[in-house]
Amino acid sequence: MPRYKLTIEYDGRHFVGWQRQKNGPSIQEAIETAFAGFCGHAVPIRGAGRTDAGVHALGQVAHADLARDWDPFVLREALNAYLRPNSVAIVEITLAPDTFDARFSAVRRHYLYRIVNRRAPLALDGGRAWLVRRALDAGAMHEAGQALIGTHDFTTFRAAGCQAASPIRTLETLDVSKDGEIIEIKTSARSYLHHQVRSMVGSLEAVGSGKWRAADLRAALESCDRTRCGVVAPADGLYFTAVDYPENELDGPD
Amino acid sequence: MPRYKLTIEYDGRHFVGWQRQKNGPSIQEAIETAFAGFCGHAVPIRGAGRTDAGVHALGQVAHADLARDWDPFVLREALNAYLRPNSVAIVEITLAPDTFDARFSAVRRHYLYRIVNRRAPLALDGGRAWLVRRALDAGAMHEAGQALIGTHDFTTFRAAGCQAASPIRTLETLDVSKDGEIIEIKTSARSYLHHQVRSMVGSLEAVGSGKWRAADLRAALESCDRTRCGVVAPADGLYFTAVDYPENELDGPD
Repeated sequence: MPRYKLTIEYDGRHFVGWQRQKNGPSIQEAIETAFAGFCGHAVPIRGAGRTDAGVHALGQVAHADLARDWDPFVLREALNAYLRPNSVAIVEITLAPDTFDARFSAVRRHYLYRIVNRRAPLALDGGRAWLVRRALDAGAMHEAGQALIGTHDFTTFRAAGCQAASPIRTLETLDVSKDGEIIEIKTSARSYLHHQVRSMVGSLEAVGSGKWRAADLRAALESCDRTRCGVVAPADGLYFTAVDYPENELDGPD
Repeated sequence: MPRYKLTIEYDGRHFVGWQRQKNGPSIQEAIETAFAGFCGHAVPIRGAGRTDAGVHALGQVAHADLARDWDPFVLREALNAYLRPNSVAIVEITLAPDTFDARFSAVRRHYLYRIVNRRAPLALDGGRAWLVRRALDAGAMHEAGQALIGTHDFTTFRAAGCQAASPIRTLETLDVSKDGEIIEIKTSARSYLHHQVRSMVGSLEAVGSGKWRAADLRAALESCDRTRCGVVAPADGLYFTAVDYPENELDGPD
């Protein structure tokens, strides 16, 4: 059975999250339904990350095994036709080796968090960014955020319901930049705890608004105490942008 | 009666256009209704440009005369509260001199047109960009577009129903740039004919895809023949971004 790697874009507002759930439409279900419609057999898919309700993706990755060979271009066009009207779009499909696993082969996951920093409501970006009305110092946020880089116990920035075996994670990069009223926070790590990015962003917002100093963020991290976390930033601003895999995991079969 | 200058953002998908019309909700009507709700009297407003159904704005400008003085900050907050849920947002309000007229004082209007150049449907930008599936050469579009700069008879790029007295307009700038799969076309001019920007963009797309050469665009312009225009680009990708006024028109009363 040939294995395919899918790169996926979606608008998280229309879904209860990536993962198939009983309480509403999921992205996984939408894509599996499209596969079943086109291929005529059940096609379970596995994604690189389980995004929550309202979280968007520009480059989620999943893999799927099909009963027969399809030209990747034809397959993508067909799936996108089945996915109409498209709140989910398959932006790329490539053939992958049998050993490729969207979740377990991933070596780095990239997220973007978008803040619009102004008083006025968002007429165009509602549901697609976090509107923060008090003035934020993006430079202070970036500087303070560097304390989160490296290997730490991220219990402070972990959802109460997080099911990971260990609270230890390694944050590779965290960059805060500002362009006009838009503040972008970009992170990369092999993996994250549940709500980790939104928890970190919420605490960085406290630094940006002057409520916290950089030392308060460090102390919150070191306390390993969930109650020391700032507000959890809303799902609206979060985008799963890309997943990195080792080169040799991406070579298709000869 | 103090005069106020409003800077306005809106999502054109929710409206029949800027101008009050009988066939559906307009941006003008939404703002006038908010004014009436807050001020308790009818407040006609005049906009710098009459955008069509589906066209967005980041910086439309309008003016309004009120019966009494309001602090601009308080006025903006109140109007935005009346405008909830916000498909229209007042991003700025300033006091303006009595001689200021959003439409007639304007010396330059800026538009942005967004194309996403890829095969896959738009999961996140549906209604907010033009999806062009065939590969476009943005450099060729920019180069050919320079023939439109200057003072010309723009009959070729003018809607059949355009009510302007003259088809002569002066295009000041037209810049095409590409960043990944996003192509942005930015224009500035004192004023435009009806559908002029979308007509020019549609013809530039013909150049970008190789259907037209630069000489075909020049010939279309020089023909002053509407039937020589390319397709009219959809409203989805068009954003009214800013309006320039002479410095002295913006000084508030002492």
